[in-house]
Amino acid sequence: MTQTFDIAIVGATGTLGETLVQVLEERDFPVGALHLLASSESAGASVAFRGKNVRVREVDDFNFAQVRLVFFAAGPAVSCSFSERARAAGCTIIDLAADAGVPNLVPEANSQRLTGLPTPVHIASPSSTAVALAVLLAPLREHLQLQQVTVTACLAISALGREAVSELARQTAELLNVRPLEPRFFDRQVAFNVLPQVGKPDADGHLHLERRVVSELRELLDMPLLKVSVSCIQVPVFFGDSFTVSLRSAGPVDLAKVTAALDSAASIERVENDDYPTPVGDAVGQDVVYVGRLRRGVDDPDELNLWATVDNVRKGGALNAVQLAELLIKDLV
Amino acid sequence: MTQTFDIAIVGATGTLGETLVQVLEERDFPVGALHLLASSESAGASVAFRGKNVRVREVDDFNFAQVRLVFFAAGPAVSCSFSERARAAGCTIIDLAADAGVPNLVPEANSQRLTGLPTPVHIASPSSTAVALAVLLAPLREHLQLQQVTVTACLAISALGREAVSELARQTAELLNVRPLEPRFFDRQVAFNVLPQVGKPDADGHLHLERRVVSELRELLDMPLLKVSVSCIQVPVFFGDSFTVSLRSAGPVDLAKVTAALDSAASIERVENDDYPTPVGDAVGQDVVYVGRLRRGVDDPDELNLWATVDNVRKGGALNAVQLAELLIKDLV
Repeated sequence: MTQTFDIAIVGATGTLGETLVQVLEERDFPVGALHLLASSESAGASVAFRGKNVRVREVDDFNFAQVRLVFFAAGPAVSCSFSERARAAGCTIIDLAADAGVPNLVPEANSQRLTGLPTPVHIASPSSTAVALAVLLAPLREHLQLQQVTVTACLAISALGREAVSELARQTAELLNVRPLEPRFFDRQVAFNVLPQVGKPDADGHLHLERRVVSELRELLDMPLLKVSVSCIQVPVFFGDSFTVSLRSAGPVDLAKVTAALDSAASIERVENDDYPTPVGDAVGQDVVYVGRLRRGVDDPDELNLWATVDNVRKGGALNAVQLAELLIKDLV
Repeated sequence: MTQTFDIAIVGATGTLGETLVQVLEERDFPVGALHLLASSESAGASVAFRGKNVRVREVDDFNFAQVRLVFFAAGPAVSCSFSERARAAGCTIIDLAADAGVPNLVPEANSQRLTGLPTPVHIASPSSTAVALAVLLAPLREHLQLQQVTVTACLAISALGREAVSELARQTAELLNVRPLEPRFFDRQVAFNVLPQVGKPDADGHLHLERRVVSELRELLDMPLLKVSVSCIQVPVFFGDSFTVSLRSAGPVDLAKVTAALDSAASIERVENDDYPTPVGDAVGQDVVYVGRLRRGVDDPDELNLWATVDNVRKGGALNAVQLAELLIKDLV
């Protein structure tokens, strides 16, 4: 009989937590007992797993010594409050909302970092944007002398939670029905509009997420000096992040080699230039990062431009965390 | 009495043509006779000007010798077919859909080029994206050793015409009402989605508009060697283009000087970092380019990032053309 692992998911009622449960089931992860945890407001709800409803309990009352593996899928404040308790109980932690300092991992980019981590292992699954970019750029490292990455991340509303998703739908209906717009979650019109930020900028004008993606990407690619510029914009899309990416190499880009490297990567689906991938049409619900619109600079052979799209909740979050768990349990057996 | 000018507008029934008529009226342009022209399908319609309805006539039958100044606001095919006739009749031409080879002008960036042009003058008002970027970057030329410009242009549907605008509304309503989606103008879902291209890419993967913006921007800034990377994406926004812009200077960016230069430019409205401009909330209907989210690189002082938004039809098109006409008539008097 296969060994099973007792697992806790903190933040089980959110979009990310529910997707985690679903991905564990889909991938036949050897789950023994599954403990779903949330704040007191969400406790009492239930989430389906393997045909049964699992009741969500309060994280405050939970004894982490009951489980081997904990996923943190609530906000950074929750990770911060409870990860120490889980660690003290000897749990392996995969943190989807970690503070700086916890090592970030994306299996396709830096799985070698799993070796030799102090136990109990506490690792982070980075932002969806960093997951997508790392999956995409890791196989290109040997074919490009990568010097600079400039990214515009067009972020889906779903990363902000259910209230934000409802607001986009409500604002859109109000506008189509020529009713007065009443922004609540957002402070202005988000329907049929683009907002150039997600969260508040710091004193230097950077968003927390922009700084986070810069440092996560350097860490994941193990390129601490890589120049990275990230602009995060909020687009009126429910699910699926998408990215324009402009790369600068120290020498001419060999497009044939780049194409071959992308095509041989298991987690990348490349779309030819007679078509293109979109968040809604391609990425959502899928386990891969879609890439298209591959082209060099208009007259600059050292430049490589592309477009990518990913299911921010699934591949960018839950699936990356479960893939990490799959690697970790090899050592836990 | 002020001298007046007899004018023709070719493409008068399109969004751009109608806005041209409106801007000429608003700015009290010394219009004498106004001839509105269109293809045979659109002829017979009428457009309001100074409280009267002006009937739109067929461009094929028009005698260009009746006017001094012609605006071409239909597609490039129409400009190509009729501009030679207008030129032969001695008309000054402002072409909003010119082929390559016609000098591009944005008053805020390169009005000096008006001097010494061969007569009759034939000039082009460039793409909306190039207008916005030129207005924005022209006052920064002396404060940055500009080496590289990387732009993601988030384009509004309105640039594609009325049929595209209706389709975004119709698709959105279908999705909100859980009716089957029937794409017609677009070949897929554009509502709540982002499409990474506008038009078909060429053999090298570049869009016509991307190539156009690169060459127009170099021309407008008189920087033929400037590295420019442009990615055009179609966002589900009716009106107003917006841009993430990442600039690289040969030395550290002086943010105070950049801010002062932007603030002293008449056609730029800068928004402080405790707020931000959006296409719908700010740019639409306005005569200025809005800029915000001004910041250097996360740890790179040679990098400058910003966000800009412009009314693509008005400031990016019709108004730029009328501003050019205002400069030209000084010489025509």
